[in-house]
Amino acid sequence: MCGAHVIDGLQYANWSEKVFREMRKGSVDAVHVTIAYHEMFRETVANIEAWNRMFETYSDLILHARTGEDVRTAKNTGRTAIVFGAQTPAPIEDDIGLVEILHSLGLRFMQLSYNNQSLLATGCYEAEDPGLTRMGREVVSEMNRVGIVVDMSHSAERSTLDAIEASSRPIAITHANPARWHPARRNKSDTVLKALAETGGMLGFSLYPHHLSGGSDCGLKEFCGMIAETADLMGVDRLGIGSDLCQDQPDSVVEWMRVGRWTKQIDYGEGSAAAPGFPPQPKFFRDNRDFPGLAAGLRAAGFSEDEAAGILGENWLRFFDKSFGPAR
Amino acid sequence: MCGAHVIDGLQYANWSEKVFREMRKGSVDAVHVTIAYHEMFRETVANIEAWNRMFETYSDLILHARTGEDVRTAKNTGRTAIVFGAQTPAPIEDDIGLVEILHSLGLRFMQLSYNNQSLLATGCYEAEDPGLTRMGREVVSEMNRVGIVVDMSHSAERSTLDAIEASSRPIAITHANPARWHPARRNKSDTVLKALAETGGMLGFSLYPHHLSGGSDCGLKEFCGMIAETADLMGVDRLGIGSDLCQDQPDSVVEWMRVGRWTKQIDYGEGSAAAPGFPPQPKFFRDNRDFPGLAAGLRAAGFSEDEAAGILGENWLRFFDKSFGPAR
Repeated sequence: MCGAHVIDGLQYANWSEKVFREMRKGSVDAVHVTIAYHEMFRETVANIEAWNRMFETYSDLILHARTGEDVRTAKNTGRTAIVFGAQTPAPIEDDIGLVEILHSLGLRFMQLSYNNQSLLATGCYEAEDPGLTRMGREVVSEMNRVGIVVDMSHSAERSTLDAIEASSRPIAITHANPARWHPARRNKSDTVLKALAETGGMLGFSLYPHHLSGGSDCGLKEFCGMIAETADLMGVDRLGIGSDLCQDQPDSVVEWMRVGRWTKQIDYGEGSAAAPGFPPQPKFFRDNRDFPGLAAGLRAAGFSEDEAAGILGENWLRFFDKSFGPAR
Repeated sequence: MCGAHVIDGLQYANWSEKVFREMRKGSVDAVHVTIAYHEMFRETVANIEAWNRMFETYSDLILHARTGEDVRTAKNTGRTAIVFGAQTPAPIEDDIGLVEILHSLGLRFMQLSYNNQSLLATGCYEAEDPGLTRMGREVVSEMNRVGIVVDMSHSAERSTLDAIEASSRPIAITHANPARWHPARRNKSDTVLKALAETGGMLGFSLYPHHLSGGSDCGLKEFCGMIAETADLMGVDRLGIGSDLCQDQPDSVVEWMRVGRWTKQIDYGEGSAAAPGFPPQPKFFRDNRDFPGLAAGLRAAGFSEDEAAGILGENWLRFFDKSFGPAR
């Protein structure tokens, strides 16, 4: 695995020097970070401003990645590449013109919907899923044109299948697991996973306890066994990690993710009144320093060195190379 | 009809002293005016600022109405009351807290969706209509609480029926006609009209040519005959006018209504490539000065003086009295 790139397909930490140093300790070369949940355009720009200050302050630890090449530069200079993504389409508000603007500002992934209905697609907590909307189809074309990856991690089934079909470029589910392993609402059916793989899309395996069989008690062996089963379904090249690590965040942040500004009630999402906060991480994956342990787990589950390297980052890197520029 | 109030349930003119003077000539005591199509919160506030300047400049002709009483004051002082409404929920963006803020600023009607899917409900041009969304149900409750009328003029069938059921207060379809008279996509089924009437809701008859049988060639007699048929279905007290008059607007405005910022293509909505602009008004209703002619037409169609007065404004006034304040 020497020389291979380690990439995490999704994190939303409470970013700090401590976290960036842990990324280096874990030899994590790139992370797709969430820069917006329910933030609209101007708020998203403010979040990018905050990232720009971190890129300046911690220039020895991180850099802003706009291309796969930037990930290689990060590795070669001993830093971690930060790739921007949004977990809802709130940053483009109702304005298709903001897709290109946000690409210019570095956005490379955007979910078409989070848990609820958006202007573009349906989220996994709605009772009904009518698929991509009129605006959704227009925005997918525009994302394809400029090079922002369609991410359907939180979207409902039909919307996800519609997006796979409507998108002229491969899409991603950056952080979720197969529903047949753990039937959480956020996990994905075999139908979705097959359609994703057949069109060159990528699945990032989540380490968020609500997505794991056994939750916080899930073990490395079960996790890597699930990956081996999914490789049989999707092919090993379509797989990556999308840890969904929300390190050092207060519980107020998971409330913001779930409730945003759409209700005056509390909505527990994947949690419950009895367990409203972030669940404890599984023992084998506490933070970025545990990536080497994942490599060992994958080898123990029967993956070759090359296959494990693919899952841990090389597959994402090839996908970044194909996806982040304008359509040819 | 002496002493009765004349109210138009929807207009979106290119507002000017000329239009306000025509309202006075037509003895129009109140108009529900559209202050936002696809404008988001800050843009909507700018539009309200522009209205505030007009209220100051033309204080002899118009006043800002927040209640039914303000309509009576307008009539008693020889002015026209202006009631604010929004044709899409863009002004509340993704923020339920903006419902109360906009009520404080004078908003009294809000459509849950225009032609497309919104965060709340589905528009009549979407291929699928899954009904009210999770946020839609929350926002309807909040509109009920503070006193903003749910308007489903452009919404799709199931979403409209959902809104009628979910709303604890009567809703409105401020500008549309029965589909059985003219089966345009914007016109409403008997099922919707019955459910609307049974819950105390109001229908405003539209004079926009695309909603009329015969289009621009529709005659006063056919229009009033359609109203008489609808009275048999809904009861005469549930009926008003919502002319949808878009006077003196350039065709760029109808393009904004249809296209907003959701596509880079042209969408013709109710128009077509051959007829992309505003259609010519029917001869019997060119502008606000033609309201007295509507009164004559209703009498000729067999309505009593009281019934005609109800349709021309008294029904809307009673509805305003019940609807514009906080829920009891």
